[in-house]
This record gives sequence, structure tokens and C-alpha cells, in this order.
Amino acid sequence: MDATQYIKDLGLAARGAAMELTVATGAQRDAALRACAAAIRRRRPDIQTANEKDIARSDEFGLSRAMVDRLRLDGAAIEGMAVALEQIAAQDDPVGRTISVADRPGGLRVEKRRVPIGVVGIIYESRPNVTADAGGLCLKSANACILRGGKEAMNSNLAIAAAMREAIASVQLPAAALSMIDNPDHEIVTAMAKAEGLIDVIIPRGGERLIRAVVSAATIPVIKHFAGNCHVYVHSQADLEMAQRIAMNAKCQRPGTCNAMETLLVDRAVAQRFLPAVAAQLQEAGVELRGDEAVCRLVRGAKPADEADWSCEYLDLILAVKVVDGLDAAIAHINKYGSRHTDAIVTESPAVTEKFIAQVDSSSVMVNASTRLADGGVYGLGAEVGISTDKLHARGPMGAEDLTTYKWIVTGRGNLRE
Amino acid sequence: MDATQYIKDLGLAARGAAMELTVATGAQRDAALRACAAAIRRRRPDIQTANEKDIARSDEFGLSRAMVDRLRLDGAAIEGMAVALEQIAAQDDPVGRTISVADRPGGLRVEKRRVPIGVVGIIYESRPNVTADAGGLCLKSANACILRGGKEAMNSNLAIAAAMREAIASVQLPAAALSMIDNPDHEIVTAMAKAEGLIDVIIPRGGERLIRAVVSAATIPVIKHFAGNCHVYVHSQADLEMAQRIAMNAKCQRPGTCNAMETLLVDRAVAQRFLPAVAAQLQEAGVELRGDEAVCRLVRGAKPADEADWSCEYLDLILAVKVVDGLDAAIAHINKYGSRHTDAIVTESPAVTEKFIAQVDSSSVMVNASTRLADGGVYGLGAEVGISTDKLHARGPMGAEDLTTYKWIVTGRGNLRE
Repeated sequence: MDATQYIKDLGLAARGAAMELTVATGAQRDAALRACAAAIRRRRPDIQTANEKDIARSDEFGLSRAMVDRLRLDGAAIEGMAVALEQIAAQDDPVGRTISVADRPGGLRVEKRRVPIGVVGIIYESRPNVTADAGGLCLKSANACILRGGKEAMNSNLAIAAAMREAIASVQLPAAALSMIDNPDHEIVTAMAKAEGLIDVIIPRGGERLIRAVVSAATIPVIKHFAGNCHVYVHSQADLEMAQRIAMNAKCQRPGTCNAMETLLVDRAVAQRFLPAVAAQLQEAGVELRGDEAVCRLVRGAKPADEADWSCEYLDLILAVKVVDGLDAAIAHINKYGSRHTDAIVTESPAVTEKFIAQVDSSSVMVNASTRLADGGVYGLGAEVGISTDKLHARGPMGAEDLTTYKWIVTGRGNLRE
Repeated sequence: MDATQYIKDLGLAARGAAMELTVATGAQRDAALRACAAAIRRRRPDIQTANEKDIARSDEFGLSRAMVDRLRLDGAAIEGMAVALEQIAAQDDPVGRTISVADRPGGLRVEKRRVPIGVVGIIYESRPNVTADAGGLCLKSANACILRGGKEAMNSNLAIAAAMREAIASVQLPAAALSMIDNPDHEIVTAMAKAEGLIDVIIPRGGERLIRAVVSAATIPVIKHFAGNCHVYVHSQADLEMAQRIAMNAKCQRPGTCNAMETLLVDRAVAQRFLPAVAAQLQEAGVELRGDEAVCRLVRGAKPADEADWSCEYLDLILAVKVVDGLDAAIAHINKYGSRHTDAIVTESPAVTEKFIAQVDSSSVMVNASTRLADGGVYGLGAEVGISTDKLHARGPMGAEDLTTYKWIVTGRGNLRE
């Protein structure tokens, strides 16, 4: 089928559903979310059968064992989706709230009110549980959504979406509030990115290739969830024991995540005291170190880093390490090579901290804390759509409220412009 | 010169200036704004000489008399720019404020803090005073800006920018905080829209052709300031005298603006009572009426409207008029043909008002008030960058605060992810 027509049909149905959602109450949307949780539990056998189909053909897509593990939906993973949906239902309603209200001259009342965005398109390559999380957050925020998961998880995603659509309809809301694309064609992504008037925003979560494809094609607004090339900078006035604990946690606690550390920067003044010990502990944990000249001199077994290493998101037990000449050099390195995701400083100096916060151009700046803590749950946002690497609209961990916009409501008694 | 290289050079200088602005105080930025006002007053002869050059060649660009009038900078217009800059200086500082702060488990402090966006690109076709307004608002919000005005106003814009750059440097801030493009080449617009890493957001203000060119080329975020196809809907329970006053004001008070009414929708139940009188008054004011069949039957001298009329932003004394069958039909018409800018309802019914507010997908919804009141000044925002017709980041009148984003600042004492 023609991709543009396919998206047009889905988009028109979603637009109609979005219109119905604007007048649904928060209680109705929460009831839909709880019904979704129940439906996912009830249809667990169907979801598992679909998931087994995906796993059976994972060889076709050349998935690594780690990727197959991420794809697998066991009982605990399915129960996890249901629980997440119930938690989203229990959160505060993000829409309908008054952001500000002012009584203006002439008796004009100007209210800024939080409203849903409308139709949200989400394109992802991650585990199938994103279907439930992202779909649930859109429903919570009264948006219709059009979801497009990876082709390797297509059967699992469709089974989860079918359960949710059935549940949404069971509480008299439109099933078209949640659509899952069943067409693996790449042209669908382009058609989504050009669906002006049908989709209000497109959120791509994934690797560079996916993001580039969406951004170059897009004529509608995009909120990117891009790579995390996260840094930890150990300042000369750091508590070096704390710095070592943070470096270990940021690199090793879960190296495959976007908020894991990929580059360690160390002030020259403390390099000799700090580096050999932390390097030994990292190597013991299986981390391969790639350093600049100074690092290679200080650390046995470190390989020389090349220019590409400073920009690389390894998502693996590999770490780039560099010795820098103080705060300004560290900030310049991070702003040049980083991905504006999450960057940390370890220091006891308040003045250094403030300059680092002001000048490092990242969505999350961690002070004496692990980069791994950049997370919607840790920040208190509840479930997250993902971590935005853009600066506009939503930055960093993105929760249900970030799926809303606002409207100006101006009420008069026949007020005119003079 | 190669457009990409031209923008790269400007962008790198702007990026450096933006970095300096992150550590400038609000008092320094306000001093720069007051210095800009003084410099514009002092260099009034230069600005007028430059403006006369633009006016002398306005024939080359085929400008109408109205457009030449908009281009002209007399003493009052120049003083107006200086006063606007002083008013911006007097506004509250939009950056540095804490949006929220939470103490999270483990002693982690999570702060969401307002920060500048970085480098803002603004492309406009309007009067030269936009150079001072937009440049001033960027400075207020600690952003560097790259401005690109219309070629017909190039000399005027460059003279205003030169005065402001001199003033910014005079208070020890970087002149590169404000750059005015002196190259009329259209490829510059494309290069700006693709300047990833150099420009953080691009704001096009202007006609459909300009907006389309920016949106299709863009790989960086865009906030569109597009057309206003604004509606006034007269509901069956309207105060018809009030409705007539609002219709007259919305159409005639200043028809060339984006928040002027372009289509009047009237409920069938009141059409016969309402239309003949308002039509006569509009016609007396010189308004040409283009109506559907029902309107043409009721209004002497109305021409038949065709499909294109419903989407048209006339910016002139022309009005499309349509009789509709109630609230849902009015909402459907506005969402189909409107431009999501500003739409008004006249009604005495609270239930009808609430549904109109919820379902009309526009940045400003006016209740018993003229569409002409959609304005940053009227809303209490101070000077405005323009009126965003996008839903993301900034919607409707966009002030200095809308030129900011936020950053998450997470402070611990060695906190790790478990």
C-alpha cells in the first residue's frame, strides 16, 4: 500500500480520536489505562505467542543474543507493563490545569491552560514494553498516538496494542486513540515525518540512522531522543574516592544505557593520584580503556584513543579517558564532543560547580552524582516517554506533562482592540 | 561567498558569544539593552540615511505604497525602537529562575532551572523595527541571535544592528551576540535551517513561501510564525449587538494584521436576524463580502465564495462569510480551514463555550472578545517575538521567556544508581 495514504488513513482516524479525547475526563482516561493493564494480563498468552514468533525469526534480522534478550517478554516483563500502566493511571492528570491567569485592563481575563498536543507519533527501536509505556503516557495526556516499533518486534508490539485498543474501546473511548503501524516499510517513517495536519509531533527514539532519516524528511516538529555521549569530569578539587565510586557506577552499572558514561575527563593536577587506581578498578570490571597520551603514560594497558573515540557512544564496556587542563578545557571538550544528554562534574568547589552548570550545554548536569541517575523516575516525573536530547519543548527526561501544550483562553464582555 | 561557510563563520562567533552570555548577569544584559536604546537615538541620522537608500530602491523590489510606508523609519519610528528596548530592559529577567526543585530519596536535589536556548535564528520580512525588538528580546533572554531581514530593508536593518552591536560591545559584552546577515542570497536561509550545532532554533516570521522554504530545508528545530486565518463564530445564543461590534473590530480595526478576522461563521438560527445588519455595516466600511449560498440570499451585494476563500488570509478588507448548523459544524470548519492562530466565539452559553475552547485547535481562543486582542502586550507578556502558530515549545504570543529552555541540575554527595 502507498505509505502516504496509509498514514493519511491512520492520521485521520487518530485526529478524530484526539478530538474525542479533548472532552473525555481524566477519570475516563485513567479507567482506560486500568483497563489496558487488565487486558495485557488477560491476553498474556496471545502476547507471548506473538513474542515467540518474533524470537523465532530474530536470526533473519541478525539480532545478537543481548538484543534477543531485550526482545523477550516473559511473565515478569508482561506483568511489568501492566503495573506501569496502573502507575501512570495513578499519576496526576497533566491536562486541563491553569498555568497562569491574569485579569487585564478592560476586564479581559487571560488564561494559559494546559491542553493535549493532539496526535503524537512515536518511532522506536527498543523493547516491546515501550509500546505500553508510550501508549499509556499518550492516553494519560489525552493525546492520540501512532506508534511505530522495530520490525523485529512487530508481532509482540501488535499483540500489546491489540489488547490496549480493546481495553480503550471497552470504556467507551475510541480505539483509534492508539494505533500501531503494521507495515514494516521504511517509507512509512518518511510519510509520518511529513504528515502535516495529521500528526502534531514526531518523537524518534533510537540510533543515529533512524534520527537522521526522521530529521531530514520531517516537515512537522520533531523531539529527538538521541545518543548519550555522557562525560564525568573529575576536577582538581574533587573528593577522589567519591569520583572513583561515581566513575565505576556511571560506566559499569548498566553500560548499554544512554546515560552511562562514555568519556572520563581528569584534571592534570590530580591525574597521577586518581587515574592509576580508577583505571585498575575499571579494568578489573572488564572495561577497555582508550586514552590520550597522558593517560597511556599513566595507565598500564590503556590503548591510544583516536579522534572518533571522543564522539563515540559505545554502549559497552569501553571508556575513553582524557587528561584536561582545568575547567574551561573540560567544558570545551564536553560541548564539542558531547551529545547534550547528561554530563557530570565531581568537585568540592561551589564556584567551579556554578560555571560548569552554566556553560555545559546538556539537558542534565550532575554534580557529585552518577550520570546513571538521569531518569524520569529518579527525578520524580513518573514513567518517561524517553530522554529528549533537544532543547525545545522538552529537555531531558520527558514525562506525561511534556506531551501537553497550552492554549490561551481570553474571555471578555465584548472587548475590542483600540 | 559560499552560504554554508558564511553561516558557519557567523554561527561559531554567535556560539562563542552565547557562551559568554551564560555567565553575564541580568544587570549587564539590561545595561546592554539601555545602551542599545541610546545608540539608536544617537545614530538616528545614519539609520535614516540607510532607510532612505532602501526607500530609493523600493521600486526595484516592486513594493506597493503600503509596503513602502511600512518600511519607512521616521523620527517617531526610531524613537519607538529605543523606547521598546528600554521597556524590554525593565522587564523581569527570564533566565536563571528555578522552575521546580525537589529533594529526592538518597539526598539527591533535582532542580529544573530556566536557561537561555543558546543561538536563535530569526528570519523575517517585516518592518525594520523587528530588528530592534527581536534582537532586544534575544539579549534579554541571554541568547545570541542571527537575524535575517528582508532584502528590501537591508540597509535599514544593518544600520540598526550596527548601532546595537556597538552598544553591546560598549558594556563589555560580545558584539557577536547580535549578527545581522548582509547577504541577500536565498541560499542563506537554507544554510541557516541546516546549521546543526551552530543555531539551536530558527524562527521564521512571514508568508507561506518563506515558511515552506524553511520547514522543508530544516534539520534544526523551527518555531513557525505563520498565517492567521482567524474566525469569529456567532453562536445562536450570542448577544447579537456584541457580536456585531466584535465582527466590525476584528475585521476593520487593522485588516492587514495576522489576528484580523478573515471568516465570519453565523449560526443558521440567527442568520436572518444578524447578517443583514452586520453586512451593511461592514460594506459601509468598505469590506467586500464573499458568502456561501445562504449568505448570498440574505446579503445584498455579497459575492459567492469558492473553496479557496475558506482558507485565505486576505490581510485586506475582504471577508468570507458562512452560515453553519451549530457548534459542531463551526468547530469542524475552523479546524479544517483555520490556521490554528486565533478564533473567537460569541455566545452566552457556558457549556457551548467550554466545548468550543476544548475542541478548537488554536493557540488563542477568544470568548466574547475580538481576535485583534491576541497580542503579547494585551496578554501581559511585554514585547513579543511574534505569534507562534506551532504547538510545541511556544504557542501564540511569544515573549522573552519563550526564548528560554531549562536544564536539570542534579546535586548529590556521591549518589549512585542502584
